[in-house]
Amino acid sequence: MPDFNAPLRDMRFVLHEVLQAPALWARLPALAETVDADTADAVLEEAAKVTGQLIAPLNRNGDEEGAQWRAGEVRTPAGFKEAYATYIQGGWVGLSGNPDQGGMGMPKMLAVQVEEMLYAANSSFALYSALTSGACLAIDAHASEELKNTYLPPLYEGRWAGSMCLTEAHAGTDLGLIRTRAEPQADGSYAISGSKIFITGGEQDLTENIIHLVLAKLPDAPAGPKGISLFLVPKFLVNADGSVGARNPVHCGSIEHKMGIKASATCVMNFDGAHGWLVGEANRGLTAMFTMMNYERLSIGIQGIGCAEASYQNAVSYARERAQSRSPSGPQAQDKLADPIIVHPDVRRMLLSMKAMTEGGRAFAGYVGQQLDLAKFSDDAEERATAEALVALLTPVAKAFFTDTGLDSCIHGQQVFGGHGYIREWGQEQLVRDVRIAQIYEGTNGIQALDLLGRKVVANGGASLRVFTGAMRAFASQPDAPYARELLDAAQRLENLSQWLIEQSARQPHEIGAASVEYLHLFGYTAYAWMWARMAQVAQRQLATDEAFYGAKLATAEFFFRRLLPRTLGLDACIRAGSESLYGLSEGQF
Amino acid sequence: MPDFNAPLRDMRFVLHEVLQAPALWARLPALAETVDADTADAVLEEAAKVTGQLIAPLNRNGDEEGAQWRAGEVRTPAGFKEAYATYIQGGWVGLSGNPDQGGMGMPKMLAVQVEEMLYAANSSFALYSALTSGACLAIDAHASEELKNTYLPPLYEGRWAGSMCLTEAHAGTDLGLIRTRAEPQADGSYAISGSKIFITGGEQDLTENIIHLVLAKLPDAPAGPKGISLFLVPKFLVNADGSVGARNPVHCGSIEHKMGIKASATCVMNFDGAHGWLVGEANRGLTAMFTMMNYERLSIGIQGIGCAEASYQNAVSYARERAQSRSPSGPQAQDKLADPIIVHPDVRRMLLSMKAMTEGGRAFAGYVGQQLDLAKFSDDAEERATAEALVALLTPVAKAFFTDTGLDSCIHGQQVFGGHGYIREWGQEQLVRDVRIAQIYEGTNGIQALDLLGRKVVANGGASLRVFTGAMRAFASQPDAPYARELLDAAQRLENLSQWLIEQSARQPHEIGAASVEYLHLFGYTAYAWMWARMAQVAQRQLATDEAFYGAKLATAEFFFRRLLPRTLGLDACIRAGSESLYGLSEGQF
Repeated sequence: MPDFNAPLRDMRFVLHEVLQAPALWARLPALAETVDADTADAVLEEAAKVTGQLIAPLNRNGDEEGAQWRAGEVRTPAGFKEAYATYIQGGWVGLSGNPDQGGMGMPKMLAVQVEEMLYAANSSFALYSALTSGACLAIDAHASEELKNTYLPPLYEGRWAGSMCLTEAHAGTDLGLIRTRAEPQADGSYAISGSKIFITGGEQDLTENIIHLVLAKLPDAPAGPKGISLFLVPKFLVNADGSVGARNPVHCGSIEHKMGIKASATCVMNFDGAHGWLVGEANRGLTAMFTMMNYERLSIGIQGIGCAEASYQNAVSYARERAQSRSPSGPQAQDKLADPIIVHPDVRRMLLSMKAMTEGGRAFAGYVGQQLDLAKFSDDAEERATAEALVALLTPVAKAFFTDTGLDSCIHGQQVFGGHGYIREWGQEQLVRDVRIAQIYEGTNGIQALDLLGRKVVANGGASLRVFTGAMRAFASQPDAPYARELLDAAQRLENLSQWLIEQSARQPHEIGAASVEYLHLFGYTAYAWMWARMAQVAQRQLATDEAFYGAKLATAEFFFRRLLPRTLGLDACIRAGSESLYGLSEGQF
Repeated sequence: MPDFNAPLRDMRFVLHEVLQAPALWARLPALAETVDADTADAVLEEAAKVTGQLIAPLNRNGDEEGAQWRAGEVRTPAGFKEAYATYIQGGWVGLSGNPDQGGMGMPKMLAVQVEEMLYAANSSFALYSALTSGACLAIDAHASEELKNTYLPPLYEGRWAGSMCLTEAHAGTDLGLIRTRAEPQADGSYAISGSKIFITGGEQDLTENIIHLVLAKLPDAPAGPKGISLFLVPKFLVNADGSVGARNPVHCGSIEHKMGIKASATCVMNFDGAHGWLVGEANRGLTAMFTMMNYERLSIGIQGIGCAEASYQNAVSYARERAQSRSPSGPQAQDKLADPIIVHPDVRRMLLSMKAMTEGGRAFAGYVGQQLDLAKFSDDAEERATAEALVALLTPVAKAFFTDTGLDSCIHGQQVFGGHGYIREWGQEQLVRDVRIAQIYEGTNGIQALDLLGRKVVANGGASLRVFTGAMRAFASQPDAPYARELLDAAQRLENLSQWLIEQSARQPHEIGAASVEYLHLFGYTAYAWMWARMAQVAQRQLATDEAFYGAKLATAEFFFRRLLPRTLGLDACIRAGSESLYGLSEGQF
């Protein structure tokens, strides 16, 4: 298994130079005291150590040993428990948590970089804390003061962990169908009964307690999604002094045997009249759950980037060392029998595709993080509203585009290794297996695409989209904006296509779902075009200070605009062919 | 694990109706006596039984148990040995083998359909016989009469198996680097010494003997690929009466732990002065090996189609049964709480993409098989030469495009299942893991693409390509040719792009490798367009006789032309961006 080295220089480039985070932090009161460039760098450096030295070395054994279930208990692979104990001492779980409850209050822009390192090092390990951070967010936003005071501090500390209990065997995408019941009790709590599946970290041996956030229905609840409430159900009840008390009747019935993320326990959770407490309003549980869901969606998107980065690092290293055949332009390593395969154009194409998409994704993740920070911390109501609209618009793009292209990058990296990529030894096949889940969980990428096109674009007549493309156009109007023509064309293509879809979908209800996945990809390439133009602008300005680093940014931007962005032409044409040809067959004719 | 049902009606459609195989067989003397429509149907039906009832049921356990190595011996998973014994009794290994040596002499057009069933049922199992058939082909074409008489009959019978020993740890794509040595012995044989890796079926417990075809260098061999010879090295020496004799010093040192095809033993083979016999001329071993290689390349391509077909069958069945959410056009299953997911446009998009690509691939595999049959059996020299040119041109397309899009189809099928696609239970994740190797082995798809564009298109100035596009144009000129305009446009796009690449590559040696993979994909979509137009023509003519079946063909053709073929626009634009942006970074800047 190769080493993982966090791309610190690239992360600082995105954070400090492209997104100019320190200037933003300085003007937001809640952040000005908390973080500056030096603090951020210290956080990144420490995260690089923890992920590279503590967590990444457990990745391969984690895959081979896997999480093990026995009589309701889950044992994580060797080393996980000790590493988790060390990890939480760094305060990482509460990195961007509410400081009033023990969180560190760091900006999301910074946290996304740390998350990327975690996923790159060990996706299974990362999930245990990712779910905890997301659960904290939902509790902080929607729970009563009493629940917050009881649960948030140990969750931020990492002594306790969170889980998200939505799916049932017959209800995945369609949560309106859930059957888990919540019976009101005399003491104001509820008795939760039902069975949930695919619960990441539903049981584990890393933490003293596990706090489940559970969707269930009250006895008088309306049918469908408007009759769902959210409950907090701890594995162990909590005593008045905050200590862990009696076992709550919620148990792990089994864990899944999966393609990848084998060290992450994916649990069947059985609730047998377990004590639970309502979070937020009755029957408004989906809204509260979506606070966590949206957090997890961005986080899972970042799993795509993290795995892609790990794949890229491995593949570049192999391509520099593996010698096979000669360059088409003649021998390069004259003293050897063959050239390193990095000289071959098709190997470069794969490496550059990985590099351009991973770095484009990192910048875009930072940008979405920036909007989250503005939505949360800005004291300007209009700025908050704009940022919120962008977060809503861009979260499904981030989740699905990062992970669809993350799989591509892991496949490319595996392909660079040839046959060696298919065997365990080099870690490439594990990356492919681990990243594949990210296209599926937290709402499949098809669902993300429906959310993007249906709810976030068509439903508001393209208003949020115009905020985004407006920002692109503003950038392109700068005198030294690189690729201004290409950017304006890309923005125009996205706007025209969106307008066409708004019109089509008014007439034909299938049009949104017929276009959505390819539309999301076209959106993603367009967004990355802006990110690459921004990175190229900084690189142009700074080139003289570090020709190797900034020159690489300029060359990768050039590759992106020349060789990847034109994919939007094919996507546009496929989408404009419409939905009709999807309905030429009856169900029986498939 | 779901059942596998061979798509017999679709296979007969391709063979009898689209490619009109029976008429062709009737005019080729070597086939007229051997096969007609009824014989072919009987073969397909028997193959459907064997693969569906005998072989497919072993697929999941084969994955979970895997091939096991102990002290030089390999044990295949439970049931494999017994199933293989039953399987070879049907004569399947020698299906298209030389009848003079015990083969059944069946046409390749038919054999490709049988191969598809084998891979769909159980890719690991299929490999043991695929390697044997390929080895027979090379022995039949290049070995001495004595070797042929000794080895071919038991190989065709399936009592013995073949293996292909090319790769060494430091020599995969670049076979010129191999170090395995062959020392001439007094008796005319050779002592083979060296170590080979990634040898599929190098050791197993299914057959009495294993016949290795081994690339090695003679003591006086020139350096590089022109100094490679091919040797036949049996696991057990063969006595004068054909019985199995003494153990030859060739042993399996270990097997690989792989992402998939776990029931196929991928062996390290150590040759310690093993007895071997020269096959073909000294130093011309690569030519002889390529007889086997080209066979295996088409075969491995068909693995892509087979896995895609299995994925499609599973996904359609799940999409009909799984109920989630309502159709965008309103409830369809009024009596239920949700509609089957096959009503949703994005699910249909995935299913139709799988269907269009799998059936397009099946037709194209049949077409390539037809050219192989013409090249082998035609008594018209010009017809043979044309067919040979087409086989050379189209084999890399088949290998790489079938497998690249085969992975896509397995991913789509897995996605249709949502979270259930990621767990073992439904078999979808195994298909993804199993099909992934097909893009890598028998020459990576990058190597196929270089072969296509460099050797088969640019090197002959596009002559072979014009034979192919000429046939497309001839089809499109028929008065009732459907999609004639789209076909002519696609052929023109491919020709223009090829001409542009011929010119570019004369000036810039990187251009071929920079374009090759995307070029191969553009070629593949163009070829499938022709196949779909041909299928649509038959369906139009026959529609009244079976509206459900032929109507589905017409609707799928429509989907292909509207929603998939426009992808060539993006590919064309990316390729025409040229190779320059691949070389903007130095090796150190990656």
